[in-house]
Amino acid sequence: MRLVRFGEKGKEKPGLLDSQDIIRDLSGILSDIDASTFTPSSLAHLQDIDPSTLPAVEGNPRLGTPLRVTGKFLAIGLNYRDHAQEANLPIPSEPIVFMKANSCVTGPHDEIILPPDSKKTDWEVELGIVIGSEGAYLEKKDALAYVAGYVLVNDVSERAYQLERGGTWDKGKSCDSFGPIGPWFITKDEIGDVQNLSMWLEVNGVRRQTGNTATMIFDVPTIVAYISQFMRLYPGDIITTGTPPGVGMGIKPTPVFLEENDIVTLGIEKLGQQRQACVRYKG
Amino acid sequence: MRLVRFGEKGKEKPGLLDSQDIIRDLSGILSDIDASTFTPSSLAHLQDIDPSTLPAVEGNPRLGTPLRVTGKFLAIGLNYRDHAQEANLPIPSEPIVFMKANSCVTGPHDEIILPPDSKKTDWEVELGIVIGSEGAYLEKKDALAYVAGYVLVNDVSERAYQLERGGTWDKGKSCDSFGPIGPWFITKDEIGDVQNLSMWLEVNGVRRQTGNTATMIFDVPTIVAYISQFMRLYPGDIITTGTPPGVGMGIKPTPVFLEENDIVTLGIEKLGQQRQACVRYKG
Repeated sequence: MRLVRFGEKGKEKPGLLDSQDIIRDLSGILSDIDASTFTPSSLAHLQDIDPSTLPAVEGNPRLGTPLRVTGKFLAIGLNYRDHAQEANLPIPSEPIVFMKANSCVTGPHDEIILPPDSKKTDWEVELGIVIGSEGAYLEKKDALAYVAGYVLVNDVSERAYQLERGGTWDKGKSCDSFGPIGPWFITKDEIGDVQNLSMWLEVNGVRRQTGNTATMIFDVPTIVAYISQFMRLYPGDIITTGTPPGVGMGIKPTPVFLEENDIVTLGIEKLGQQRQACVRYKG
Repeated sequence: MRLVRFGEKGKEKPGLLDSQDIIRDLSGILSDIDASTFTPSSLAHLQDIDPSTLPAVEGNPRLGTPLRVTGKFLAIGLNYRDHAQEANLPIPSEPIVFMKANSCVTGPHDEIILPPDSKKTDWEVELGIVIGSEGAYLEKKDALAYVAGYVLVNDVSERAYQLERGGTWDKGKSCDSFGPIGPWFITKDEIGDVQNLSMWLEVNGVRRQTGNTATMIFDVPTIVAYISQFMRLYPGDIITTGTPPGVGMGIKPTPVFLEENDIVTLGIEKLGQQRQACVRYKG
């Protein structure tokens, strides 16, 4: 099952994508797609619905994030073996964890807003995990049972804020619009092998990232179990799992960063595609 | 005006503390105290209520966090001049920002849960800012207008997770129960000079921290304006502003950390007091 939220920013309605990619309106059944939607019982209830019984949405509405995020937006750094090799960085002995503010989430095709003085805004195509059950101190063998499904994430990052301004990475990860999520949420039963999904990102049609979740250093169950040692996970929490080679910061000999009017497109197999135009913040 | 939430965990009701420290039940007026409560218009509406017209709450109910936190829980590191001197660390040239997961918040008198393998759980008495208005890219001169008021925070921290496990500080700041907040929220008009509040913390009756918000390196307006350069602030976001000298990690010659059955008490002038018993996580 694939879930979406559609409509004007802040007023999105819940929807279900049918097998023809037509949005079916869920607003007669759910008020919104939020933390409560991702529990096993809520998902099972939605999966019992025959999509053809729901109204088809006309036209081509804006898509929002496929869930309203009020919990955690966690992220893993340097989690692709080929990315670590490319960057000439040692493979981490345990996952690097940081946080993105939940206020940075935005729809999959919304604009990326470059902060007024930003010169180093960068891209990162990533697989995002959506948690379905509350849990802490999980074992790896049990961890997948706590996962509801997956989303596509662009972990937009301002490298100067992240790396040159003191303190933790969080400063460069949380600007408005730095968390495009979607187009859809997909339940884990429909993803197949989550550790064998191809992924890509282009800027202005130039291929920048090509990867596969097969080269993750820490796989999905390891990440979920690991984070649960440090904080309790709740339904609707998101964990974005790191990016493959090809970020702008790593381009040799001269790094490339996003500029006004650039177009970023990205995708992961079974998770759909995103398209973002870059604009400068205007106040 | 001072606001509280009272009752069983997860089922707290909103209340207002009157001048005799009696809780007046606000549940006939508000469903909960959350982000929407802290806007200037919502606070003005509540301030118009004569507390004596509200039912007095009988007995001595548990207090929860004075607000339900669904937004950001931000924190500033190393923000007291005397603490930096004591720790022999350079004074930061700009604020160190990190995040606590909003799932770690807990009532002011709830237990601190020591993680199963934790040996370095530490304390930090702090002034917490509660945001009242949405804003980004604020100037320092305007920043106080975006503040609704203040809370007392114990920024409980696991030092091994924070400093010895790779990545950012966030791993050691977000365990369950690591964010006691309260007992009350106080509006900024009643705080007086926020940069002249005495603060203290004791463990088992032994004084460990003694400080005053006067020795902050970056004051409240500077912090609010600074963070707003990196992420948009929303009503109900919390920023905890760093701790004065005397954390367990800094005790010479041997650091002292929290153990089972320890009792932590702390307070800040005008923000009330907290009392936490330490227990080991039992699953």
